[in-house]
Amino acid sequence: MNIAIVGATGLVGRTIINILNEKHLLKNNNIFLYASSKSDGKIIFVDDKQYVVKELDFKNLVSRYDLALFSAGREISLRWAPIFAELGAYVIDNSSAYRRNKNVPLVVPEINFEDINDTKKIISNPNCSTIGASLPIHQLSKIYNIKRIIISTYQAVSGAGQNAVEDLINGTDKKLPYVITNNLIPQIDNPLKNGYTYEEDKMEFELKKILHNQALKISTTCVRVPIVNCHSESINIEFDEIPDVSRVKGILGGVKGICVCDDLNNKKYPMPYFADGQDDIYVGRIRQDTSNSNAINLFISFDNIRKGAALNAVQIAEEIIKNK
Amino acid sequence: MNIAIVGATGLVGRTIINILNEKHLLKNNNIFLYASSKSDGKIIFVDDKQYVVKELDFKNLVSRYDLALFSAGREISLRWAPIFAELGAYVIDNSSAYRRNKNVPLVVPEINFEDINDTKKIISNPNCSTIGASLPIHQLSKIYNIKRIIISTYQAVSGAGQNAVEDLINGTDKKLPYVITNNLIPQIDNPLKNGYTYEEDKMEFELKKILHNQALKISTTCVRVPIVNCHSESINIEFDEIPDVSRVKGILGGVKGICVCDDLNNKKYPMPYFADGQDDIYVGRIRQDTSNSNAINLFISFDNIRKGAALNAVQIAEEIIKNK
Repeated sequence: MNIAIVGATGLVGRTIINILNEKHLLKNNNIFLYASSKSDGKIIFVDDKQYVVKELDFKNLVSRYDLALFSAGREISLRWAPIFAELGAYVIDNSSAYRRNKNVPLVVPEINFEDINDTKKIISNPNCSTIGASLPIHQLSKIYNIKRIIISTYQAVSGAGQNAVEDLINGTDKKLPYVITNNLIPQIDNPLKNGYTYEEDKMEFELKKILHNQALKISTTCVRVPIVNCHSESINIEFDEIPDVSRVKGILGGVKGICVCDDLNNKKYPMPYFADGQDDIYVGRIRQDTSNSNAINLFISFDNIRKGAALNAVQIAEEIIKNK
Repeated sequence: MNIAIVGATGLVGRTIINILNEKHLLKNNNIFLYASSKSDGKIIFVDDKQYVVKELDFKNLVSRYDLALFSAGREISLRWAPIFAELGAYVIDNSSAYRRNKNVPLVVPEINFEDINDTKKIISNPNCSTIGASLPIHQLSKIYNIKRIIISTYQAVSGAGQNAVEDLINGTDKKLPYVITNNLIPQIDNPLKNGYTYEEDKMEFELKKILHNQALKISTTCVRVPIVNCHSESINIEFDEIPDVSRVKGILGGVKGICVCDDLNNKKYPMPYFADGQDDIYVGRIRQDTSNSNAINLFISFDNIRKGAALNAVQIAEEIIKNK
């Protein structure tokens, strides 16, 4: 297979390469790495092999691709994803470019892989915060009707790219709106007219789309915190009946992609410290809401660059390969 | 007046001294600084004056105190607060020792100073997270009936004392349950049987006591984040009618002790970066809840060592002096 990785030098792109390698998908396929002109000629080492990054330009394209994994931002995706789709590729796009397009499936493979079909060559990868919340919410929606969801996030700087990571390390504000060292920023992405940010609106819109439930009631507050990697979320879910907390723990514990980490007495709960570099979404602090017996609180942590972006994209690719 | 500061070398104790100095209450009164035996003889410099710290021991007590401000932990308060009260002092205690005692008022002066009377010589200062949330909630409870409150906190390490600050700076876990650098910890204080932590239970219990409303429905999730100073909280408040968001902003804006900082388009919202060293509780991101039109979200940041502890204690002391 011919596999293109667009945005190969970014945090997500490099993690996609590493995950493809872990899954033995690098060596047996032709890998084409693309980035901006300033990375042209850059060499990426993976184990004993070298891969040369090329500028994303028509002169560097081959005539056919099977898969193209994009994580180079919205503008690049809008321009180049249709071109790669024309050249035969299933395009899995990490940007927000196509997520709201009705003809483009927005996929967390454990939830709605069936939204992909042969006529839909462009597939959107959801926002990182959305992916983390979607798995536990989806599982719980199978056993209880969900009335309302309230989420407050604790998002790592890696979600805003390498320059934001450098902002945290250096105490600068080159990428982020303010210095993030010893600070947090309750704004991620642009403001909207209703007082929410675009990041908050993404979570609401995307969860509804992934879960095929436009009636879902969601309100989110998205906050950047001074952590290099791994997003966390405090999630309150109200059902239309009193949930059985041990049943909730049981159903979440039996799901691929979720690790229930919930034993407060033994200091076991989701934290970036545990989730970093892991594939699973860690779920814990599961308990009945003291303000409403029909609701529960839970807390999640997950590697936003892996399951929140690169891993989810590769998992979509794997499923496509398997179903071809 | 004879004023005792017990726990004078800790983060809160030192801030109490600084605030007393700012308010010109140091020079005109007799100040007695107490701490553990290992700080005996230590000198604290305030502007051009020196104060000698003494071990908290009967041999170092004088025969009468007017005020005693305690921030040396629960055990010291349990043992010594009644002794200082016997020696005539109004004792303002920052620990959790007396907060649940029915005969001890738990006071945020802007809300319930009238709970103090001459027969109650020991007065409790609420938990830092509680103080921050209490002011906006109290104001809003004047115009709308509150049905339910859901809070997720972002608590700075200074709330756990100087050793926790050193944990963050050094990447150690001497005071905190895990390394906090590049991490967050969704456990503050001990676990309870219902799956909550004692910190979370404190917020629920204390808000009900301060607001004189045992029927208040509250659920909280308390999380330590890698920030030296200033707590933040994401607060969802459900009323029994649709609130007018501009009226909410207006009523919060007119309150002493609150600074409404709410203009997303101009990147104005509460952050530790703004709140550090300030007396006000910063309130912003005020908006209608997209999951329930009767609810609002808001986000607050405040200096947990000042308004969350030292300043609130000194404000109580000032009111007592004024009303004597």
